[in-house]
Amino acid sequence: MTDSAHTEKASRHRRRMQRKKEVVDAAIARADQEKGLLLVLTGNGKGKSSSAFGMIARALGYGMRVGVAQFIKGRSDTGEEAFFRRHENVDWHVLGEGFTWDTQNLERDTETARQGWVIVQNMLRDPGIDLIVLDELTYPLTYRWLDVDRVLEDLKNRPSMQHVVITGRAAPDALCEVADTVTEMRDVKHAFRSGIRAQKGIDL
Amino acid sequence: MTDSAHTEKASRHRRRMQRKKEVVDAAIARADQEKGLLLVLTGNGKGKSSSAFGMIARALGYGMRVGVAQFIKGRSDTGEEAFFRRHENVDWHVLGEGFTWDTQNLERDTETARQGWVIVQNMLRDPGIDLIVLDELTYPLTYRWLDVDRVLEDLKNRPSMQHVVITGRAAPDALCEVADTVTEMRDVKHAFRSGIRAQKGIDL
Repeated sequence: MTDSAHTEKASRHRRRMQRKKEVVDAAIARADQEKGLLLVLTGNGKGKSSSAFGMIARALGYGMRVGVAQFIKGRSDTGEEAFFRRHENVDWHVLGEGFTWDTQNLERDTETARQGWVIVQNMLRDPGIDLIVLDELTYPLTYRWLDVDRVLEDLKNRPSMQHVVITGRAAPDALCEVADTVTEMRDVKHAFRSGIRAQKGIDL
Repeated sequence: MTDSAHTEKASRHRRRMQRKKEVVDAAIARADQEKGLLLVLTGNGKGKSSSAFGMIARALGYGMRVGVAQFIKGRSDTGEEAFFRRHENVDWHVLGEGFTWDTQNLERDTETARQGWVIVQNMLRDPGIDLIVLDELTYPLTYRWLDVDRVLEDLKNRPSMQHVVITGRAAPDALCEVADTVTEMRDVKHAFRSGIRAQKGIDL
């Protein structure tokens, strides 16, 4: 490329980016509200819970207080718990007893979920908690261990600046409707199906 | 429900879950390989970078060492950086100077990305680093600031147990093909479009 062609290319790029900047800046200026968000991370792909844990890290980076309730999961030896539980700004609750096919006891699963929700209700009334993660909450909703209307009502009545992140497959439509942000994690490819076991630091 | 109907229902549930458990256990038994994974988190939805940061938390929970390279992003005041940079097992590199429409200088963007990749190459040769996060790497690939073949070659030659997580919209097909796990974060709904600004602890 000649020097002048080079200069012309750089100049075209600069003009195009200047126009793009105006569009982006205008969109940012329009988005001026502050609000406690309700986020739903659903779908079959890898990344739902880990994304919620990443938001915990972000929140802690700003000195915010975080509450976590893990439904379904019965184990307490995950990397996320080992890492976050020791943090003074985190309340971590493991509320499950394992998957339905592990417990094989419908009544006990229901009772466990309901007791868990009482703990969550207390967090949803506490304006001192800035972010609440309800990990794998969609399953007790789908199995009707918890009443969706009750859950939606409690979410609606939470402090106005409190963020809530809900994870799990097949999030109910009623939940997605009231959410501010919904991401569907689509499973394009997963190492597990190629015979690779769940890896520490990635999957647990 | 009568007592006997109740007992019958519980018993059906137990048998169904027992069969499901056999299927799940067999799948887990088949997935017996250990391997350093290459994960790609792409799509337009919220959750790509935060998911990568959640995996950092998991890895640190197991005492693993982590390297992070943030392309594009020029700012150093995010929650994730404030939180993780102070951790002794984390090497954190902010390699960008902002979005293309902020810098408006194609040559400088290219040079910045190439210098950044040299830092990444050193991490990809270090078997002492268990997890590497290449945040927003897809953009320098899409803009051809970095050569995809060079990047794929370096990824292929990394230590066999090293995990790498790559985030960003529109991941190139060639990258997805060699990845072990690919998730497309589909943007169902985003608070930003309803006029809510990026929130600390959630978006940054």
